[in-house]
Amino acid sequence: MRCDAIWRNARLATLAAGAPGLGQIDHGLVAQSRGRIVYAGPANLAPALEAERDIDCEGRWITPGLIDCHTHLVFAADRSAEFERRLAGASYEEIAGEGGGILSTVRATRAASVAALVESALPRLDALIAEGVTTVEIKSGYGLSLEAESRQLEAARALGDRREVAIRTTLLAAHALPPEFAGDPDGYIDTVSREMIPAVAAAGLADAVDAFCEGIGFSPAQVRQVFEAACANRLPVKLHAEQLSNLHGAALAAEFGALSADHLEHLDAAGVAAMARAGTVATLLPGAYYFVRETQLPPIEALRAHGVPMALATDCNPGTAPLTSLLLVMNMAATLFRMTVDECLAGVTRNGARALGLHGETGALETGKWCDLAIWDIEHPAELVYWIGRNPLQARVWRGR
Amino acid sequence: MRCDAIWRNARLATLAAGAPGLGQIDHGLVAQSRGRIVYAGPANLAPALEAERDIDCEGRWITPGLIDCHTHLVFAADRSAEFERRLAGASYEEIAGEGGGILSTVRATRAASVAALVESALPRLDALIAEGVTTVEIKSGYGLSLEAESRQLEAARALGDRREVAIRTTLLAAHALPPEFAGDPDGYIDTVSREMIPAVAAAGLADAVDAFCEGIGFSPAQVRQVFEAACANRLPVKLHAEQLSNLHGAALAAEFGALSADHLEHLDAAGVAAMARAGTVATLLPGAYYFVRETQLPPIEALRAHGVPMALATDCNPGTAPLTSLLLVMNMAATLFRMTVDECLAGVTRNGARALGLHGETGALETGKWCDLAIWDIEHPAELVYWIGRNPLQARVWRGR
Repeated sequence: MRCDAIWRNARLATLAAGAPGLGQIDHGLVAQSRGRIVYAGPANLAPALEAERDIDCEGRWITPGLIDCHTHLVFAADRSAEFERRLAGASYEEIAGEGGGILSTVRATRAASVAALVESALPRLDALIAEGVTTVEIKSGYGLSLEAESRQLEAARALGDRREVAIRTTLLAAHALPPEFAGDPDGYIDTVSREMIPAVAAAGLADAVDAFCEGIGFSPAQVRQVFEAACANRLPVKLHAEQLSNLHGAALAAEFGALSADHLEHLDAAGVAAMARAGTVATLLPGAYYFVRETQLPPIEALRAHGVPMALATDCNPGTAPLTSLLLVMNMAATLFRMTVDECLAGVTRNGARALGLHGETGALETGKWCDLAIWDIEHPAELVYWIGRNPLQARVWRGR
Repeated sequence: MRCDAIWRNARLATLAAGAPGLGQIDHGLVAQSRGRIVYAGPANLAPALEAERDIDCEGRWITPGLIDCHTHLVFAADRSAEFERRLAGASYEEIAGEGGGILSTVRATRAASVAALVESALPRLDALIAEGVTTVEIKSGYGLSLEAESRQLEAARALGDRREVAIRTTLLAAHALPPEFAGDPDGYIDTVSREMIPAVAAAGLADAVDAFCEGIGFSPAQVRQVFEAACANRLPVKLHAEQLSNLHGAALAAEFGALSADHLEHLDAAGVAAMARAGTVATLLPGAYYFVRETQLPPIEALRAHGVPMALATDCNPGTAPLTSLLLVMNMAATLFRMTVDECLAGVTRNGARALGLHGETGALETGKWCDLAIWDIEHPAELVYWIGRNPLQARVWRGR
């Protein structure tokens, strides 16, 4: 069989659904044609293959390209000065009085052009790519008006033209209350549901709709209205749920067949069961847990017992997770959440893909999927989870290239 | 004035002792001759300077090259498999029964040649260097015999020939009890004090002597014997103290004028006062705190109040800190220990140098010191502490090169 490229003499962690553990294959081979995997499996079971690019991996490990399924990567102005002030003893109230917090990011993002947003996001995207990431989800949520949210989503899409990476965009207009709607959250949610979601859907700017269900965000009733608008516009939904308290957001998300519910530190048993029934992915964000010094752990045991797929992501954002390393996220998930090595690796591959509705396309080394590969200078995949601050990526392949 | 190189149009964080904060200079210049700084300060106060290499920093920030003053960088065989087993539910007892733990590192390290130790350590050293580290301390402690400890120290010295970095070596023979001395720790300490320290000192293999003062390590009386041998052989001392319990090791270290006492989670007020009087540096290791999920915080407020210099280091080791990012250590010190941005940066520069007795030579941008520089693509030094998993190093200079 003629194909475009072959990677031989490799150890594979296929992460194939149904395979035990990591789907380990000791003497493996991957072949691609037109960017899709045409074979991934034991070398001795492969068909006869020929390709112009025939790469000897010298025994290295190949995993699926990594997937960061929850980021707020596009924004203007980091909040390092606010971080410095906080460490020096300034209170939340003082910071807010100085115009800090999320609304400072909103002001800066509203004032930035698409080109400026792209330029400022590129180093963050490049940091992810340097660790073998091939698919990144990017949310809006710092514009909070149709025009500014659209600009953020356009910048996210433009990043996909600048780098060899798949970008999935999510409209997160229901992230915070914009100042012009102060005191009128229902009015803002009406605008989100009746104007912003239809317009963004019509423009093809978003692949999903997300919201922040929390005392300091939006109520379950407001989230329901947003989700109904998303459904009416044929956009799948996701939810920031149960991060700081339990408003039963995960069950609400499950009711709408959400792709994922994210954070989940305060998720209860009923929420776990609802997610399991709906097939909603639990996207865990240990970097935010670490950075805000959360102490309530997400219910890993219950999620595991109910077979809820667990994804891991950076949550990269300027306020609660200024973080651009998915390898470090795996270590945090293991160290802080006691997730196993296999769970961590599934979290940034197969289950990350599922959290984006892309599990038919990427996230595992399987025939028919995009040929998205990360090739590692390691002796065992556990090293990817164990080491902190070390990047053993030897090569990265996106859609066969 | 003729010199060898000039870095112009830079913002400087000099970290000069006595300067307020970071010793910030907005329109700065650094010049070097024969590897030493001949001027570091405001451009408008500089003498007339000429050099073949005249570099425009385009407004970038220059800090002193970073210093990692506490590592166990040289060892054979990581312990990722043990980490994986632990996450999968294996108990300490099971791991120990399988031959895991520190003695597995000792077995592997004893079996490794100097060349093999160097090769396995190079990627770890390179990860540090990639973040602007110019000085690294490396301890022995996995040999636990004169021959094997010497091999570890030779490997550490050899790393300094392979890369443009200053290596300081520390004999840590009193790290754990070797199996051949099981039940006879006093006998081992006799061997360390009477044979190993004099031999290593005579061979010029170590710049300092360290010990592990802990219930699972060695008693204060045993450490005292080690320190007396070090003094008799004119080697300065350091100590792993108060990590898991309070054996008053820091006060013992201070009594011997130790360069540093390290870890210190369980340090008490008397220990802080003793360190302050002796000028002993507190080397804090938030990566180990994070990895072993410690909950007792080191007494930062008391150290600050007494003016004890605080250094930060990776503690890079296979058991409790498989960590090779000093930038991440700064974030952990800020996030977990609430150290300020200025304290974090002093911890990996000026105070790191002091913990190695090198504060006359490096760790600050001052005339007469080695020209060890890190040049950063940032708008403010706080970004170095705030961002997690991002490396904005633009260039690194070691001894002027």
